[in-house]
Amino acid sequence: MQKSDKDGLYRVIFSRRDVRREFLADEIDNETISKILYAAHYAPSVGFMQPWDFIVIKSREIREQVYKIFQKANAEASEMFDGKRAKLYNSLKLEGILDAPVNICVTCDRDRRGSVVLGRTHQMQMDRYSAVCAVQNLWLAARAEDLGVGWVSILDEKSLKDVLQIPDNIDIIAYLCIGKVSHFQDTPDLQRFKWQDREELEKLVHIDMWNSNIDDELIESIKANKKFPQQYSSN
Amino acid sequence: MQKSDKDGLYRVIFSRRDVRREFLADEIDNETISKILYAAHYAPSVGFMQPWDFIVIKSREIREQVYKIFQKANAEASEMFDGKRAKLYNSLKLEGILDAPVNICVTCDRDRRGSVVLGRTHQMQMDRYSAVCAVQNLWLAARAEDLGVGWVSILDEKSLKDVLQIPDNIDIIAYLCIGKVSHFQDTPDLQRFKWQDREELEKLVHIDMWNSNIDDELIESIKANKKFPQQYSSN
Repeated sequence: MQKSDKDGLYRVIFSRRDVRREFLADEIDNETISKILYAAHYAPSVGFMQPWDFIVIKSREIREQVYKIFQKANAEASEMFDGKRAKLYNSLKLEGILDAPVNICVTCDRDRRGSVVLGRTHQMQMDRYSAVCAVQNLWLAARAEDLGVGWVSILDEKSLKDVLQIPDNIDIIAYLCIGKVSHFQDTPDLQRFKWQDREELEKLVHIDMWNSNIDDELIESIKANKKFPQQYSSN
Repeated sequence: MQKSDKDGLYRVIFSRRDVRREFLADEIDNETISKILYAAHYAPSVGFMQPWDFIVIKSREIREQVYKIFQKANAEASEMFDGKRAKLYNSLKLEGILDAPVNICVTCDRDRRGSVVLGRTHQMQMDRYSAVCAVQNLWLAARAEDLGVGWVSILDEKSLKDVLQIPDNIDIIAYLCIGKVSHFQDTPDLQRFKWQDREELEKLVHIDMWNSNIDDELIESIKANKKFPQQYSSN
């Protein structure tokens, strides 16, 4: 592909953020929503299964019900951390359910192609993973359209299914908040607020097998390219 | 973002393929591999957990061992289909383990940040889903670099762990074949060979809740934008 295409992709990947604080209430036009849904729909899927559905939630009333589910789960989650960590946890904003004008719930219909699915025979999670690929495509397309996306995972699945009237045999994969933003942060919130540092990539790369100590030029190349992501974003 | 960035992203998303037949044996330079690994490493992750590792396999000997694991699993899988479907299954090429010069195994270390992880408290699969997001970022970056990627899921996880010496507590998320290609197909193999058609997106989109019949302009916009993906790829 041409340099401009590569630059576009890398700019999107390295400046994408999990947005919670910067949402604006401005409406998103339907054409833009349809574009990011097409991006999701063109994700890879096991056996070309396309197991996903997308529930696009604009209703304030429904988002308020989802927000209550978040509040309950978040209070439970907060109890699981101790001392300083609990204090920091409670100071973080972890969702934008009411701030973002559009929420999208991505689901996985595990029975969509019957019980035997090409490529899922030895790895039953593959359909769920396909739906996650759709989430990531949607997220990147949204970033390209200058829309922020935040993935809210602190939710009780059963309660969420009740509110959205999702049948029992359908799995919830992701609940996403989507909206225009005041700005995109240069660094992920959890890095910025010192919850967790970014790992050095070279420590996560193994050559030929786990923890092999083979001296490989790839590791040198990873170290030499340490500034590659920063070319496209500040961090 | 600028139009050229958006165009680049959409071109990558809509022309990405799951490659099996078109791999060339040509070596991939380490700088390019390091770039696609950085793209993976900048995926979103629950609690900024970054639970992934990447085993980059160039060794022919190890790829031959993996290929044997595939052959065994694929023979088992083939038995699960009947009649015409079995015949079609057997005619499909479902991996490029030996054809592609580089294989990458993406894993998930579920214990990387202890047992309580921000955002994983109510959805224990979130760490695996983070690793899948890394796979999708890698896949898109590879496409931008004109490299084909094929995800091989017809593998027994335990056997693969033995060959790659992956510890018990680490999960395998994806096994990817990566290489230069003769060309990219316009349509997914499984669509081309009539295994499975592509769904109409508007049938997979719900408004506000599952199966709601609310007449929404978004559905009209999705229908009106049916040719959007084809602007960037033939199908």
